[in-house]
Amino acid sequence: MGVEIERKFLVTSDAWRKQATGSVALEQGYLARSSGVSVRVRIHDGSSAFLTLKSGGQALTRAEYEYAIPVADARELMALCQPNVIVKRRHLVPAGDLTWEVDVFEGRHKGLVLAEIELDAANRKIELPDWIGDEVTGDERYYNAVLAYR
Amino acid sequence: MGVEIERKFLVTSDAWRKQATGSVALEQGYLARSSGVSVRVRIHDGSSAFLTLKSGGQALTRAEYEYAIPVADARELMALCQPNVIVKRRHLVPAGDLTWEVDVFEGRHKGLVLAEIELDAANRKIELPDWIGDEVTGDERYYNAVLAYR
Repeated sequence: MGVEIERKFLVTSDAWRKQATGSVALEQGYLARSSGVSVRVRIHDGSSAFLTLKSGGQALTRAEYEYAIPVADARELMALCQPNVIVKRRHLVPAGDLTWEVDVFEGRHKGLVLAEIELDAANRKIELPDWIGDEVTGDERYYNAVLAYR
Repeated sequence: MGVEIERKFLVTSDAWRKQATGSVALEQGYLARSSGVSVRVRIHDGSSAFLTLKSGGQALTRAEYEYAIPVADARELMALCQPNVIVKRRHLVPAGDLTWEVDVFEGRHKGLVLAEIELDAANRKIELPDWIGDEVTGDERYYNAVLAYR
């Protein structure tokens, strides 16, 4: 098990783009989200795939279990998720020893941009770039698992 | 992906016990069962573990995806399933080139005994031993995923 400590924010401008060092196309679907656990299938750049289980509950810290699976399986599982699938491009923006992940949503959620940062401790202080807007950590409306069903 | 073709029956007597060749203790929990997909974590004899996704829908034939996972992960995931956990002992009863799996439930479902047989084709003819009772294939009340929540 891993524990994911993550903060999430709205994004107010495109200023992050000049600092981005790379990106990955993500396609992800939710197989289930009952019992306080979400089950996600995700395909990275069409070439690798993962099954990820996350406990719900707490906002900032969530238990996370991730397993690599064959892309062919992931494609079939993704089909079972339709139409509750999210397509986005994740841009990486380095910030010292941390990395902002800026998710630019496509498809049904086009226009939505969210920035996430994974921390090594819940009380870790971070500097907020000026393109960062309101914090939405723990706001279920911005959970990908919830967006997928909207 | 595998496709699981399976028929399931009630069991009317203990006569199968003389033909059983082995057994395995199974502990299994359901992380989710929405969207027509059930997500199961199962521990075999306390020593190996699997995450299994099954599509619902059709009764006799179901898509099945199974991945081995660390037992330590499975224990933690099982805790997230509480109290919706099933404990049973599966006895193997050979029948020609096929094998009856006789599940003797314990814990909350003590007294329930079900026999399953996995087939290579949906129209495969099978001989029913005299300890086999009514067929319950496709009867959702006897899905383990449903029993777990009862």
